[in-house]
Amino acid sequence: METVGALSEEEVIALIAGKLLSKTGIGEHLSHPDDARDVIPRAPKILFSMDAYTVNSLKLPWRGYSDVGWSALTGAISDIVAKGGVPHACMVALGIPPELDLKLLDEFISGMKEASEYYKVRVLGGDTNRSAEMWVAISVLGFTTARTPPSRRGLKPGDAIVVTGIYGPMGYVVKHGFEKALNEKWVVDFTKRPRAYLEVGYIIENYYKAVTASMDVSDGLGYTLQTMAILSSCGIAVRDPPQTPQQLVDLCRGGSDCLLEYALLGGEEYGVVFGVKPEWLRTVLRDLEHFNVPFTVIGEAVEAGEPGLYVNGRRFRAARYDQFREWA
Amino acid sequence: METVGALSEEEVIALIAGKLLSKTGIGEHLSHPDDARDVIPRAPKILFSMDAYTVNSLKLPWRGYSDVGWSALTGAISDIVAKGGVPHACMVALGIPPELDLKLLDEFISGMKEASEYYKVRVLGGDTNRSAEMWVAISVLGFTTARTPPSRRGLKPGDAIVVTGIYGPMGYVVKHGFEKALNEKWVVDFTKRPRAYLEVGYIIENYYKAVTASMDVSDGLGYTLQTMAILSSCGIAVRDPPQTPQQLVDLCRGGSDCLLEYALLGGEEYGVVFGVKPEWLRTVLRDLEHFNVPFTVIGEAVEAGEPGLYVNGRRFRAARYDQFREWA
Repeated sequence: METVGALSEEEVIALIAGKLLSKTGIGEHLSHPDDARDVIPRAPKILFSMDAYTVNSLKLPWRGYSDVGWSALTGAISDIVAKGGVPHACMVALGIPPELDLKLLDEFISGMKEASEYYKVRVLGGDTNRSAEMWVAISVLGFTTARTPPSRRGLKPGDAIVVTGIYGPMGYVVKHGFEKALNEKWVVDFTKRPRAYLEVGYIIENYYKAVTASMDVSDGLGYTLQTMAILSSCGIAVRDPPQTPQQLVDLCRGGSDCLLEYALLGGEEYGVVFGVKPEWLRTVLRDLEHFNVPFTVIGEAVEAGEPGLYVNGRRFRAARYDQFREWA
Repeated sequence: METVGALSEEEVIALIAGKLLSKTGIGEHLSHPDDARDVIPRAPKILFSMDAYTVNSLKLPWRGYSDVGWSALTGAISDIVAKGGVPHACMVALGIPPELDLKLLDEFISGMKEASEYYKVRVLGGDTNRSAEMWVAISVLGFTTARTPPSRRGLKPGDAIVVTGIYGPMGYVVKHGFEKALNEKWVVDFTKRPRAYLEVGYIIENYYKAVTASMDVSDGLGYTLQTMAILSSCGIAVRDPPQTPQQLVDLCRGGSDCLLEYALLGGEEYGVVFGVKPEWLRTVLRDLEHFNVPFTVIGEAVEAGEPGLYVNGRRFRAARYDQFREWA
């Protein structure tokens, strides 16, 4: 086994840069090893975000390092999509332990490269640091034509709540643990490499006046819905489960409560939850269908004495994984 | 002592966000806790960069956590300045060990806040992660009117080599070690909080057609000059030392070789090295004087059989701190 520590810093950077970095585009001038890149604005507004992960926290037992690299990039661009933007480029900073197997670093970079090609997001540069444990920080530059990209708050009673993406497999992992999940091929398949739908970003920027609030699902659907409801000072009444794999429908024998239990748990599905003014709902749904994005109208925003998430008329309290206190 | 681990993730984020984050500006809509921020382009071109540090690597014995926060932000914006841009905003990702003293986190954030106010760079958001050791990644969004911001390569024989900033104190640290440096007040004072000069960015964007190459000094002046020379396939002949503190002039009894020895070592001075076409030199220097930026024309780019840095006609081989193999 050859470790990262066997290489010099410049060799490590050359390895990463050679594999990952995007060349200069038309009208651009700077490229590796320059410390900044020049980019021409593609829309009247810039969207700017940053996401970071300790690699271990993304490392499900069935995820290889390439899957982790893929997942990290997917999570980072998902923030731009949820705000109605097109992710254009990113910068990647890595913390690398010298004892890391070079092969694993190479796999990580490969997975990130695959994601950058799949989403057509350019990797423009970054930084590497020696570190006790592996971490990655990804900053994304996106563009939007939306004058007021939807925030997390802004739902009004009566708004339809649209949820894109497929839910349940990660809820299965949270509920039953890694060992049981490992035996369920559908759970492994659905969670190995989460997928964000860029088309949702186009739709939100197009109908930004009809989209009253939006947020991507990184910490679980229940937590996302609850956060949006509380920030919007209203309730979200859930009537229908979102899309789930057929295997979960079978497991639940189609029972809506069972499906919701799995779907509201979980995390890292990177779908988007957004509110739509009722008079625009048909138009927005037609576009989601047009782009083949999986979605469900799971309920609506309602008046509520106590803002939050309501399932079958009862307040549902969603937990979120807490970085500093574990599940909270 | 209260540790970070005593707080929930949301409390940690609230503490950082409350202290550090910039409010929405005119024409902006998104703010904390949204996962992305919307920014209106301020110039025809965006400059985009990312810098990351293991906090320990910035932690000189005489630097408190607030100095480290200051230094990290200074280093990050320095990349934009060197490319002829105005740093506008940044995103900050932090890796935090749960056992970190909350007071130290607070100091770190305060130092970063002071730097963001000093440089008028807005902090728009970021991310926090539980980590085995503390690290910080800073992504900067800047703007430039320069159609072709100078890269590291592009020097032509005859170009004047301008060095901004003050050198020597960090060279003293490298040469004599922490213990001796601690007794030299001037060394401590100059290295506690490095300072970047935003005005150099204005000058480079203004005269981008006259500036043939540029690079900021983060890994030592000698290494910076050597890198630019090699990438430009020419030599850089150094004739004069850059600006140094009076104390170093006294120590060296004004000897040019002694001053250069200290000045070429070191790192984190965050000045800028740039080449200027000879016919533009007077104009550019007049502007540096106008803005009160410390600078020296230390020599010129020359033809060289072996590209690199030349001091007194002899090839000078600069070392750089290697993250993975230490000094290399």
